[in-house]
Amino acid sequence: MNFEQVDRVRPLVWQNNHLLVLDQRELPHRQSHLVCRTSSEVAEAIHVLAVRGAPAIGIAGAFGVVLAAHAVQADTGAEALQRIDLELTALEQARPTAVNLRWAVQRMRSLLQAMGSDWREGVLSAAQAIQSEDLAANYRMGRFGADCLSEGARVMTHCNTGSLATAGFGTALGVIRAGIAIGRIAKIYASETRPWLQGSRLTIWELLQDGIPATLIIDSASAYLMQQGLIDAVIVGADRICANGDVANKIGTYAHALAAKAHGVKVMVVAPSSTIDMATASGTHIAIEQRPGTELTHIGGAEIGARAAAVYNPVFDITPATCIDFLVTERGVITHPDASKMAAIFGPLSSP
Amino acid sequence: MNFEQVDRVRPLVWQNNHLLVLDQRELPHRQSHLVCRTSSEVAEAIHVLAVRGAPAIGIAGAFGVVLAAHAVQADTGAEALQRIDLELTALEQARPTAVNLRWAVQRMRSLLQAMGSDWREGVLSAAQAIQSEDLAANYRMGRFGADCLSEGARVMTHCNTGSLATAGFGTALGVIRAGIAIGRIAKIYASETRPWLQGSRLTIWELLQDGIPATLIIDSASAYLMQQGLIDAVIVGADRICANGDVANKIGTYAHALAAKAHGVKVMVVAPSSTIDMATASGTHIAIEQRPGTELTHIGGAEIGARAAAVYNPVFDITPATCIDFLVTERGVITHPDASKMAAIFGPLSSP
Repeated sequence: MNFEQVDRVRPLVWQNNHLLVLDQRELPHRQSHLVCRTSSEVAEAIHVLAVRGAPAIGIAGAFGVVLAAHAVQADTGAEALQRIDLELTALEQARPTAVNLRWAVQRMRSLLQAMGSDWREGVLSAAQAIQSEDLAANYRMGRFGADCLSEGARVMTHCNTGSLATAGFGTALGVIRAGIAIGRIAKIYASETRPWLQGSRLTIWELLQDGIPATLIIDSASAYLMQQGLIDAVIVGADRICANGDVANKIGTYAHALAAKAHGVKVMVVAPSSTIDMATASGTHIAIEQRPGTELTHIGGAEIGARAAAVYNPVFDITPATCIDFLVTERGVITHPDASKMAAIFGPLSSP
Repeated sequence: MNFEQVDRVRPLVWQNNHLLVLDQRELPHRQSHLVCRTSSEVAEAIHVLAVRGAPAIGIAGAFGVVLAAHAVQADTGAEALQRIDLELTALEQARPTAVNLRWAVQRMRSLLQAMGSDWREGVLSAAQAIQSEDLAANYRMGRFGADCLSEGARVMTHCNTGSLATAGFGTALGVIRAGIAIGRIAKIYASETRPWLQGSRLTIWELLQDGIPATLIIDSASAYLMQQGLIDAVIVGADRICANGDVANKIGTYAHALAAKAHGVKVMVVAPSSTIDMATASGTHIAIEQRPGTELTHIGGAEIGARAAAVYNPVFDITPATCIDFLVTERGVITHPDASKMAAIFGPLSSP
């Protein structure tokens, strides 16, 4: 397994005291970067989906805190924190569903609060630690998840959970990369992931950069493929995982999971523990982000459908824990997660 | 119920001895017509989806037979039929999944075979009868289906099954029109229907022309909407219905049906008896059409995703009879269809 040696695209690069954000709205057609010099520019990059993917927006949020803090004069971290408090709140609220953003900003708050006069370097190190820990977690999850797959597994993934969605390897797509590396995976299907097309625009592109071929399908073909016996496992990421194991993830995940359950196909959710939200009891308590209807009616600025009377565009859904066979985090694998198994590993003491 | 008085768009018009085909590839942006002067032009219009929808392509096929027959000299219908036999076979094979095309051409063959010297007018009358019978069947199905809905029903439909897909009213969309007319339906969701976007391009447009508002969703949001208790019934058409009640319909139908079953949502399939194929025992025997991968990777000629290593694009799927609550044809409603109920109504004697 030499997957750690490959140099992959990184969605977020800290350079010359700025955060370079690879603008994922332009992929795969153009690779251009936004240069974020303020925390509000980072919040905007998150809000408009220039950077997306739960772990990646957490990391972006952490660097947003750095930018906010570096812009103020203060003798201690606590003093700096006081001055940037409102900015951090705005950053946390740039997107509502993924808990990683809130988690990362909160972690940065706590660390900053405790810092003395060396807080200026300290706050940058803290953000860089979040980034490097995420990458390390990805590699661990890749191994854990790949070990759960059967030989010759034909897997399907939804949305993009790869380098672009994380520090640089992937959660669900990391498991797929690792599964390919150890020869465990025979076939990869990527669903296009309407409306934003993370599958066809990002996942297919990322895998091709690694020389890994994947087959593109429309989202609603997955049930048919399962009926035809073409899929052994659905492997997805998560934007938030509740105390009972319910998972908020990209809209469509629940439909794939229901179809999987109807056909004996395994469902694997892969996410770092920064995605675990033990403070939220179950999926019904999660705010599901609604995005503009133009995401359905337009592609690349061109109108594709009729002017709709209305569009309903929830961009996440909730997959109940009962649909999940494997929950993979960097701490290990939980089979058939439930509240007690979650509490045993992520109980109040270890929750963010 | 005055829905029969409304003048709606018609996908197929016989005019000046030609078949005018409203080119549905251009909708909703442009309303342009192809003028088909030969049966091979009709076959091509069917093949490229200028006309689509199982009943509509059956009607187009019937007029294709007229064009083929009118182009030859013959004393009797049987003699004409002999000369156009190969053309009719090509017409039947323009698309593989919907049985209506084969049914209509076969019916035209049988009638032509029996015609004497007046076959030239007779063959046109026969095609026009198929068209007018389809419209009458639509109105009947509209009433039957609407009566099955609960008061204030919130319904979801997939693909386009309206005027554009039929002689001029609709199968599933006819039920929805009728349900609106009698005040039974409170809310309509239309799924966009990737990859060809029949929902966002055609269904939303058609309903708006009737002044009926519908809410557009992505296909894979349906399971989430059902989980949220927002949908009471899924109403879809069919491209082929087998002897055991299994239904081939637009890809995505099966995913919606599985989600419906998981949430106690009713599944209604609406199709004229020309869609019934008693010669096919079950869904496993149906050839599922595969279409080009460019339907996923391009929209309006523009590349939307990464250059995919491969695309798998089956455009129909099979919904088992066990998922279906109501099967509505112009002959009435079958609840929970199975082989014996199908045989009782569409037994060998009445099958095409």
